[in-house]
Amino acid sequence: MTTFRTFRTQDDAHRALDGAYRALAEDDASNAFISLLSHQDARDAVDTAFREVPDGRLTGMIIAVKDNIDVAGFDTTAACPGYAYRPAQDAACVAALRASGAVVIGKTNLDQFATGLVGTRSPYGAVSDAAVPERISGGSSSGSAVAVAARIVDAALGTDTAGSGRVPAGLQGIVGIKATVGVVSTEGVVPACASYDCVTVFAGSSADAEAVMGVMASTGSREWPSDVRFTAPTTPVVGAPADLPGLSASWREAFDGAVEHLRATGCEIRIIDLAPALEAARMLYDSALVAERAEAVGEFVEAASADDGGNRGAGAGLDPTVASIVTGATQWNGADVLRARRLLAERGRAAMQEWDGVDVVVVPTAPFHPTIAAVEADPVGVNSAMGTYTNFCNLLDLCGVAVPWTTVDDSGRPEDGESARLPANFGVTILGRAFEDGVVGGVASLFGGAACPEDVSTSWTVSGGDGANVNAVPVVVFGAHLRGQPLNWELRALGAAFVGDVETTADYHLYALDTVPPKPGLTGPVEGGHRILGEEWLITPTGLGRFLAGLPAPMALGRVTLSDGRQVTGFTCQPAAVEGAQDISRFGGWREYVSPARSGGRS
Amino acid sequence: MTTFRTFRTQDDAHRALDGAYRALAEDDASNAFISLLSHQDARDAVDTAFREVPDGRLTGMIIAVKDNIDVAGFDTTAACPGYAYRPAQDAACVAALRASGAVVIGKTNLDQFATGLVGTRSPYGAVSDAAVPERISGGSSSGSAVAVAARIVDAALGTDTAGSGRVPAGLQGIVGIKATVGVVSTEGVVPACASYDCVTVFAGSSADAEAVMGVMASTGSREWPSDVRFTAPTTPVVGAPADLPGLSASWREAFDGAVEHLRATGCEIRIIDLAPALEAARMLYDSALVAERAEAVGEFVEAASADDGGNRGAGAGLDPTVASIVTGATQWNGADVLRARRLLAERGRAAMQEWDGVDVVVVPTAPFHPTIAAVEADPVGVNSAMGTYTNFCNLLDLCGVAVPWTTVDDSGRPEDGESARLPANFGVTILGRAFEDGVVGGVASLFGGAACPEDVSTSWTVSGGDGANVNAVPVVVFGAHLRGQPLNWELRALGAAFVGDVETTADYHLYALDTVPPKPGLTGPVEGGHRILGEEWLITPTGLGRFLAGLPAPMALGRVTLSDGRQVTGFTCQPAAVEGAQDISRFGGWREYVSPARSGGRS
Repeated sequence: MTTFRTFRTQDDAHRALDGAYRALAEDDASNAFISLLSHQDARDAVDTAFREVPDGRLTGMIIAVKDNIDVAGFDTTAACPGYAYRPAQDAACVAALRASGAVVIGKTNLDQFATGLVGTRSPYGAVSDAAVPERISGGSSSGSAVAVAARIVDAALGTDTAGSGRVPAGLQGIVGIKATVGVVSTEGVVPACASYDCVTVFAGSSADAEAVMGVMASTGSREWPSDVRFTAPTTPVVGAPADLPGLSASWREAFDGAVEHLRATGCEIRIIDLAPALEAARMLYDSALVAERAEAVGEFVEAASADDGGNRGAGAGLDPTVASIVTGATQWNGADVLRARRLLAERGRAAMQEWDGVDVVVVPTAPFHPTIAAVEADPVGVNSAMGTYTNFCNLLDLCGVAVPWTTVDDSGRPEDGESARLPANFGVTILGRAFEDGVVGGVASLFGGAACPEDVSTSWTVSGGDGANVNAVPVVVFGAHLRGQPLNWELRALGAAFVGDVETTADYHLYALDTVPPKPGLTGPVEGGHRILGEEWLITPTGLGRFLAGLPAPMALGRVTLSDGRQVTGFTCQPAAVEGAQDISRFGGWREYVSPARSGGRS
Repeated sequence: MTTFRTFRTQDDAHRALDGAYRALAEDDASNAFISLLSHQDARDAVDTAFREVPDGRLTGMIIAVKDNIDVAGFDTTAACPGYAYRPAQDAACVAALRASGAVVIGKTNLDQFATGLVGTRSPYGAVSDAAVPERISGGSSSGSAVAVAARIVDAALGTDTAGSGRVPAGLQGIVGIKATVGVVSTEGVVPACASYDCVTVFAGSSADAEAVMGVMASTGSREWPSDVRFTAPTTPVVGAPADLPGLSASWREAFDGAVEHLRATGCEIRIIDLAPALEAARMLYDSALVAERAEAVGEFVEAASADDGGNRGAGAGLDPTVASIVTGATQWNGADVLRARRLLAERGRAAMQEWDGVDVVVVPTAPFHPTIAAVEADPVGVNSAMGTYTNFCNLLDLCGVAVPWTTVDDSGRPEDGESARLPANFGVTILGRAFEDGVVGGVASLFGGAACPEDVSTSWTVSGGDGANVNAVPVVVFGAHLRGQPLNWELRALGAAFVGDVETTADYHLYALDTVPPKPGLTGPVEGGHRILGEEWLITPTGLGRFLAGLPAPMALGRVTLSDGRQVTGFTCQPAAVEGAQDISRFGGWREYVSPARSGGRS
């Protein structure tokens, strides 16, 4: 199993804190934080983390938390002062992070009640883009994204119902992981639309975001399917929409470049029609599904508005746009909601038909980057446009990772005049089916380090120790299924994830069998045997069963003893197959036998 | 794979029809049918079925269909004349049955819009018990259950939202299968509460009911989990409730007898608390969940009542009790429904905690058998009591099979006076988790032929040809996993289903290995080998993977060639294991080697 080191040393953590508080002192105008520890309290928190969790996977990581997620010691406001309360304990996801040694230094600003994708709908002030102050941060997880983009924190938690964990990642040029709904617990999170809410993470790199998600994924209660894929296949099939409504020519060009990058790094691109998904997405605002918002905070908003004597809740700090959305949501009746859900299911099926044969879909994360003034001029219209490529995701039970791709020379919104001609971040989101978080992460990593799908390593879905509640079993391979060998794709197609190189105890023999393609037969334990090199992979029991059901004679799978003492499932063969076969044990491994010259480079 | 014969010969089908129409002529007072073919039309339909589907699995089976399920050629009334329409085509489930050769002779009476468990809420008249006319049939699938109990048809379709496919089965002393929600398509079925509606089947025997369900199960679209169990384990753990509200001493005694029977036939009995499930069940009537009924037929009922000038819809043939339930259901708002669903999910989790370590739960199907007069005196109260042991099932996503157990000397309702002292049917229902239909069916078969769980054969969930949309792969065993051998329970624990005896081609050798418990090692193909006897089982890929992951050295699984030409996954062993081992091939099989005297009786 992989072992983890702490995130950084105690000294490095203090240096990181110093940098953070320097950055905050130089520019506190972004309104990113609603609550923030003093520098001294943050120092004490770091020391406490190193004392209490000296070996934690995240020990020394500095994080911020969106202010609709409970953190003990801070108020939870959901960006509405009248709604604020002091939680008795951490939200489940925060508790998991702290138990792994992460240090929370503050609570971040958001579109009130997570209702918005812009970052301007807050009585704590609009949050500005980290680079161009006239522009929005994106929202609703506005402060979290900016705190990461401004390098104040290593990672920050957001939430995502209609895109709040992705739109700001795209605009701020950072990574945002929105796992499958239910993978991370929403216990201790103020609901926006409880059926569709997710806790998300922002970070500067995929590795940091994956580390956080791996820890939080242990908190969810939704059961993982037993046939989930942990990684992308060898040649991922990526759906790319033909039509991209709302994109300017420059942003479209950036998108086409991202698609070309996927093709160049080994993906197969297939053009799909996104229209049925966009059709389903409209229901999030235009149908009885909005009753979810009434269920979440409707009573509070109605009471606050009423107490206020027609003042629309200004006394409680209600944002007028948010208040009118929530109040409107109380009008639907029960049968309307049931009918809307049924219609959504139908539209979802239609939308997912476009995905036949496709592993993941790539979309722009946001269609353009508007100014704060543009949002103020048309608060509902611009907000709605921002969610074009994110709205449908949770409704259709998709998972997604937003990654930065490039910088564009303009905001993609020519009507914004002067500021439209300043550079802007352009990001894409990789979307996958429910629980295909590992597949999505594998393709997303092609934008962040991996040179080809072959390079993709074990994702947070199966990272050892904590990680998601998935079932995984090891299987050891010795021949044609090794990386770079002709049948390796079979393991990848079943979603298996590479763990590392292993070797047997010194009690085995390897034979060259008379098969096509050539394969070795491993047998043991016997006196006077050899250590034989192999590779360990993680696979679901379902994947293992399918692998076995498709295995041709004379190959077989049984228990093999490794030099580290473990007995794991691995390749052997039927006894009749080794009769008269050449004993190649002295090569020490199949790769060494078939290609002795090249195998020297393997570690 | 199992092969099927047609249900009966053409001559036998005509003889069955003659019997049916004789029975109908002698007693048409039961109000069981709303539409019925003439005897001649039914004869023609039988001949058509034999001409068009000569080899169908159900060819010659005479069936009736509840009148809220579309059958082309008949009106669909849902027991409301004003609602009647003539469908253009069969409901999906009916189409599947007809394509397999079943003959529909009529449409049966029901509690209007399937709203009731009594069988009295119909303008086509109350349906009487098949044996004691003063008593109710049970509902809402009243006519279907009585048509089977009176031996007019071989099987009949019902629907079940709160117990309509089980309560009448219990009262009429027949079998009723209510599969997991979504396993049978509800396309072409008038909704009652669309999220929870199921199409069910009644028959006189488990075998007939399973044959029908096997065909209908091909129509559902809900995906089966990849780790579903096809059969009950060797020693099923059966939960039995400690408290049984509403049962008289005589009915309680009958229930205790059923539990004792389960224990005697090899089940382990564990006492559970049913209270959390009953608590969840109350939400079906007392919470915003009833908005489902408004969504289903609310507009029709409100319009019919309004047109009627305060006459409560009598002109449309509305049943006053049903109309008032549906009208009441229109009052809930959207947030109420969402909140109710969330509360239901919580209560469901609490209820299912009682099932920890339990395979299935046994409950009485109905708590007593009331008279029609008793229902008329208290239409809502008695109806509600009838659902005590059925209401929670679909809400908690359970599947169930109602089976007859015994006859009790009284109705279990002393307040009904004279008629209370006539004998009544007492049945039990076996309940299981979603998709554990095979486990439930296995335990239910202990009431209908199987002498012990070992006897349980392949259920409708994996019956070849059609059957449910499950994934199953064959695995062949040759030693300690054969039936009656020490490790057979491992296959059963993984839900594998026995298919039959098989043998290898004449190219194999069997060795006695040095293992505990003793196991054989099979190897081949080789010149001068032998045919070796084994058993074929069906298992999910997930079960196969788990089986492999738990397999100790030196056993292995690979591809074996059978005498019927198939190459299937089966037991072999690692090459090193057979070195020096005794060749026992001449015995022709492991059972013959370990116990040659006893194996003569096997086949």
